[in-house]
Amino acid sequence: MIPINQWIKIKAPATVANMVCGFDILGFAVNNPYDEMEMRLVNRSDNQLGSVLGNVDKPAITIINIDDYNLPTAPEKNVAGAALIALMEECTTVDFSTLGFEVKINKLIKPGSGVGSSAASSAGAVVGANYLLGNPFSKDDLVRFAMNGEKVASGVKHADNIAPCIHGGVTLVRSIFPLEVIALPSPTLFVTIVHPQIEVRTADARSILKQNVQLKDAIKQWGNIAGLVAGLMKGDYDLIGRSLEDVIIEPIRSILIPGFDDLKKACKAAGALGGGISGSGPSIFFLSKEKQTALAVEQEMKKLYEGLGLAHHTYVTTINQEGVTIEK
Amino acid sequence: MIPINQWIKIKAPATVANMVCGFDILGFAVNNPYDEMEMRLVNRSDNQLGSVLGNVDKPAITIINIDDYNLPTAPEKNVAGAALIALMEECTTVDFSTLGFEVKINKLIKPGSGVGSSAASSAGAVVGANYLLGNPFSKDDLVRFAMNGEKVASGVKHADNIAPCIHGGVTLVRSIFPLEVIALPSPTLFVTIVHPQIEVRTADARSILKQNVQLKDAIKQWGNIAGLVAGLMKGDYDLIGRSLEDVIIEPIRSILIPGFDDLKKACKAAGALGGGISGSGPSIFFLSKEKQTALAVEQEMKKLYEGLGLAHHTYVTTINQEGVTIEK
Repeated sequence: MIPINQWIKIKAPATVANMVCGFDILGFAVNNPYDEMEMRLVNRSDNQLGSVLGNVDKPAITIINIDDYNLPTAPEKNVAGAALIALMEECTTVDFSTLGFEVKINKLIKPGSGVGSSAASSAGAVVGANYLLGNPFSKDDLVRFAMNGEKVASGVKHADNIAPCIHGGVTLVRSIFPLEVIALPSPTLFVTIVHPQIEVRTADARSILKQNVQLKDAIKQWGNIAGLVAGLMKGDYDLIGRSLEDVIIEPIRSILIPGFDDLKKACKAAGALGGGISGSGPSIFFLSKEKQTALAVEQEMKKLYEGLGLAHHTYVTTINQEGVTIEK
Repeated sequence: MIPINQWIKIKAPATVANMVCGFDILGFAVNNPYDEMEMRLVNRSDNQLGSVLGNVDKPAITIINIDDYNLPTAPEKNVAGAALIALMEECTTVDFSTLGFEVKINKLIKPGSGVGSSAASSAGAVVGANYLLGNPFSKDDLVRFAMNGEKVASGVKHADNIAPCIHGGVTLVRSIFPLEVIALPSPTLFVTIVHPQIEVRTADARSILKQNVQLKDAIKQWGNIAGLVAGLMKGDYDLIGRSLEDVIIEPIRSILIPGFDDLKKACKAAGALGGGISGSGPSIFFLSKEKQTALAVEQEMKKLYEGLGLAHHTYVTTINQEGVTIEK
């Protein structure tokens, strides 16, 4: 266990959920952007801010926002707070009637951008807490706790951002209940992301989906999912590219994102293997085999959104293999 | 090219399509049972049996049944014949106005048993023809030709038996149009198959399926498919076992197979990793890590169908890695 009052620094990466064909099951972490956090254990009597866990007088979790997003600081309404509450409720090695956490959050991943901003806060908090407590929990436990943050953010306990944020790399959530996360090896891939500055609420992006799909489309989709997993594990770039096709979710969600079809054509023409909506959008990502291609893809993204007069931000990065890290 | 009139011997393995969660996309070949075939190139003037390809006088394809199943011998109505017609139509290296094929078929895989009997004949014929012609065609070409045999057998050009029969091992049909078959590595697996002697027509087994599936079930299914591919490629037996779950097709098709639910419980209790309906049934297969377990599973199968008073046949075998072979 780390001594009381000693701050640790945490880096929590952005993540791309769904990976085009793997709705609700696949995701990967990227090296940029990422959230910065600081955490420490405190004596509850020293801890003056935030709200109360349970029926005690002093707060057990104090959230301090360093950024300007004005996210809620009440633990049960804050994604990091909700994740920590879940962890504390299962922790039997520490007496939380006398101890608590202070968490400073500097969000560099813009909330609502579709690259796992809420997941980064939730995952960062529980990985940090686990480290402070001497690592009593497994990664699967941590994913489970952090999913409570996703419930606060979007109403659904999904794990497709949380899992890669905690494990790093590409992850498969084979099953949610019981939770089973499988790390998938992947070859070097460059990732280009564009965040057009429009708002797509995760809850809205979920509500427009049809609850039934045609069997023939489902078969196409699972052919692509199997192809993508095989392509990643074999390091077969062409197979990865051919498998990055979504016949079920993208045709519906892409109508929420201005210029999506033109952007996709332009990025593929520039040499990208494939790509699509990141999570529920509005960010869009494309994968490339070479850095030069990823940079050319970025130029296409900028050109298109400049043409549409839409504010946007781009990243050219790689797959993050470590997940949340603690600076030691 | 092999000289005119010289017979070759062919072994064409049985195959298990779908592999539980991979409806229409996954399949694997087994070492037992298999069909035996003989083939030779003949001068059309010497070839006295069968029917005519195109508008010429003498038959280009002669089918001779060695077994007692009385399958059609008219090439366009015979699965091997239909597959050969497709091959001959695309073959530019040989003049089929003067040459033809004679094919002797000894079916050891009972037609209608659900372990790719029609696929074995179609695949065996085109692999044999390709060998006789000096291998002008790729495996993907051969799969495409053999799919014409499946169309004769079931009305649908599916490839989930043909692909493993020709490639061997476990195969993924990522896409049918255009055809893309991906070989998936797999660890040593023992396969126990039971064929209860009831008739389930492939066309009937297809017609009872619902054309729409719930999105939440589709998500479960693609989690399992991704898990199965990852499990096979990692050699992770437990992951393979957990992923052998079908929430879409099996609940519907299993009602056609007497004792299915009890059999599944008994086989899993005996230690099988998992299993389910082979193709469209009525055969049922289970995978095991150890031969001893596969034999124990066979005993459970026998016990159940003896109890039900239903004639049945069992096989304990392994995954066939070669596909159709030519005896040289």
